[in-house]
Amino acid sequence: MYEEVRELYLGSGFGGRVGFGKRAAVVVIDMAKSWLDPSSPQGSADLEPVLDHTIQLLQVARMTGHPIFFTTMAFEKADVQGPYGRKMLHLGARGSLDAGSDMVALDPRLERRAEEPLIVKPRASAFWGTPFDSYLVGRSIDTLIITGCSTSGCVRATAESAHNLNLNVVVVREAVGDRSPIAHNVNLTDIDLRYADVVGIDEVSNYLEANPIQ
Amino acid sequence: MYEEVRELYLGSGFGGRVGFGKRAAVVVIDMAKSWLDPSSPQGSADLEPVLDHTIQLLQVARMTGHPIFFTTMAFEKADVQGPYGRKMLHLGARGSLDAGSDMVALDPRLERRAEEPLIVKPRASAFWGTPFDSYLVGRSIDTLIITGCSTSGCVRATAESAHNLNLNVVVVREAVGDRSPIAHNVNLTDIDLRYADVVGIDEVSNYLEANPIQ
Amino acid sequence: MYEEVRELYLGSGFGGRVGFGKRAAVVVIDMAKSWLDPSSPQGSADLEPVLDHTIQLLQVARMTGHPIFFTTMAFEKADVQGPYGRKMLHLGARGSLDAGSDMVALDPRLERRAEEPLIVKPRASAFWGTPFDSYLVGRSIDTLIITGCSTSGCVRATAESAHNLNLNVVVVREAVGDRSPIAHNVNLTDIDLRYADVVGIDEVSNYLEANPIQ
Amino acid sequence: MYEEVRELYLGSGFGGRVGFGKRAAVVVIDMAKSWLDPSSPQGSADLEPVLDHTIQLLQVARMTGHPIFFTTMAFEKADVQGPYGRKMLHLGARGSLDAGSDMVALDPRLERRAEEPLIVKPRASAFWGTPFDSYLVGRSIDTLIITGCSTSGCVRATAESAHNLNLNVVVVREAVGDRSPIAHNVNLTDIDLRYADVVGIDEVSNYLEANPIQ
Repeated sequence: MYEEVRELYLGSGFGGRVGFGKRAAVVVIDMAKSWLDPSSPQGSADLEPVLDHTIQLLQVARMTGHPIFFTTMAFEKADVQGPYGRKMLHLGARGSLDAGSDMVALDPRLERRAEEPLIVKPRASAFWGTPFDSYLVGRSIDTLIITGCSTSGCVRATAESAHNLNLNVVVVREAVGDRSPIAHNVNLTDIDLRYADVVGIDEVSNYLEANPIQ
Repeated sequence: MYEEVRELYLGSGFGGRVGFGKRAAVVVIDMAKSWLDPSSPQGSADLEPVLDHTIQLLQVARMTGHPIFFTTMAFEKADVQGPYGRKMLHLGARGSLDAGSDMVALDPRLERRAEEPLIVKPRASAFWGTPFDSYLVGRSIDTLIITGCSTSGCVRATAESAHNLNLNVVVVREAVGDRSPIAHNVNLTDIDLRYADVVGIDEVSNYLEANPIQ
Repeated sequence: MYEEVRELYLGSGFGGRVGFGKRAAVVVIDMAKSWLDPSSPQGSADLEPVLDHTIQLLQVARMTGHPIFFTTMAFEKADVQGPYGRKMLHLGARGSLDAGSDMVALDPRLERRAEEPLIVKPRASAFWGTPFDSYLVGRSIDTLIITGCSTSGCVRATAESAHNLNLNVVVVREAVGDRSPIAHNVNLTDIDLRYADVVGIDEVSNYLEANPIQ
Repeated sequence: MYEEVRELYLGSGFGGRVGFGKRAAVVVIDMAKSWLDPSSPQGSADLEPVLDHTIQLLQVARMTGHPIFFTTMAFEKADVQGPYGRKMLHLGARGSLDAGSDMVALDPRLERRAEEPLIVKPRASAFWGTPFDSYLVGRSIDTLIITGCSTSGCVRATAESAHNLNLNVVVVREAVGDRSPIAHNVNLTDIDLRYADVVGIDEVSNYLEANPIQ
């Protein structure tokens, strides 16, 4: 169904191919218990393949020297006063995003290393209210490769921000997901038309291997 | 179909009602020839009702003293170098977004007044790369009412930014639109679940009349 | 000497009085051991009066219901890669800004309460790379009262950011300081001419008492 | 006198040398009639040498293929509502910053070319409320060389923003100035200690010649 949207938008001059640049980094969005564990209000059992593909890509990125960044979300109670907290009711639900809790800690299978920054982001985009742009600029990154969840929320918002900043943005098709497969498919199309190239994991891995850092 | 997504997300703690605050402003997104005229690459004939409903709402907002803001997009050739321009091919297509051209001028039926700022935005969101946040803060606005196009692009992005800033965000159902009705419906649901209350024009008009500025 | 600068700038149309608005908040900049303890690389023994005056103002602000925010700076090693870390050599000096250390914890005499957010800022301005703007907007704040250190660095940068956002900005003369009295005086003049009203603590206290929140 | 400040700050771990990176761009701040013409409220006759040195540096930058950006400030009346306009009284003074007037046009001796973007900035920093960061990222710039005026305002604010973004920032000593020589000297020291390397024009020219773009 959403294929109609793609055709219409391509005909209107959206959806150009951005391509890869010269220095890529990988950002892994919100791969923590709060989203991966079905017992969490906003958790989903369906994201295991997303985690698996992310881990697979991280192995390549580490071997080839590409910078890696992780995000999570975590809030003190005083941080969510106002309309933001009224829209996002799950922020206060059963402590699923409490700062310092194990719900917001990264999945240990990601094996984050000390030199891979963890960005605690207060909004959907990894850039909003964080110094992420300076991390990328300070490392001369021109290409941002995105994995994680959710496609319709934090992945899309991060892709939009990175596109705004004029980075080459690549979303790894098999390594992003959503608690709703429909929302996933629809938003992946919008992302591809507006903000980022949606590319298969093999092509991304090949790029990383062919373009090691240093 | 997308109703499934709504149900799943509501059950996960998204989609709370934000409500109206005490001082509202209206922003009209990209109601210029480049989007309204079907002869433009990204134009659509279907947005006339969006324009009509926007004009109807502006009449109420002006009578009740609410600040009004307009946006358009316009580029010099040197402004679009890099990945951004490669994704958005229509930026360079047949001059449809050239700075100073009549394609990017607001539709005259909006009758913009001198005290209603026009924001020339370089990206989808009215906030990105513009001083829009300072216009709202300087007027003590706590509620942003959004009309215009496109739902899947600039409307959604503006709603997200305003939500990030912790404003009460309201998207006027009949006064936003998209060149694709499917993209419109899907994104309107995402917006309502994540960033803004999607509210009918009668309810919005009633609020403005009941809460005049000064 | 710097009085010449004031005269010249006043004659050029700078230095207008901003005044107080209707809803004020207080932000206390970097009142932690790393700046207050002379044994820290960037510490100074001269800031005790700044702390005393800040505590005095906090007592008034708490009695009158005004929101209070605190900042500190703290870094993981991976966070400071690039030019930023090369300019700010003290970031890595003797652990004086290490995340989680007691050097970056607020002075206990401030008696921060749970509802008073602590913002861990990565740069001089309390706004840069943080969600501080959304904290203020979500509380409908139109006036930001600044105390803390250093006048020539984080105080000035925060005043500039708040001014950019179109807030009424007030810097409390007796409650800001610098490791250098000369840098303090010079920058206080620049702040007053360009970004904020520099106001004595008695006048600020009187305003808070006369304009309680709720 | 301000040499004392330098010594104290150097001893506290400020003022590290950032150095030049691999791809530099030049930004020329506010070299328009409104600042160069003594008949303007904020104009000064003393900035001719700053303009001369800027032109000299532009000649080198153009020969060596480095991207060049210009800024100016210009306002519609509706744009300056709120505290910002109350502090900056000269914004409304005798039309010295009116959008579209010849007061805000760049000095013709700069000979700006079509491929050199002009950024109309609403605040002191070239980055605030503008897409300047995306212009630099889209061109893979890691070093920003700053000329223009005023040292205590727009030059300092731009240097701070660029430093925040983790660029290598260089301020060209002979090519920046201020209506007050005292404010110039003091702020140049602060800039050098906190945000940017202050470097002589010969060294900057030599760098540009030794590191042409492509």
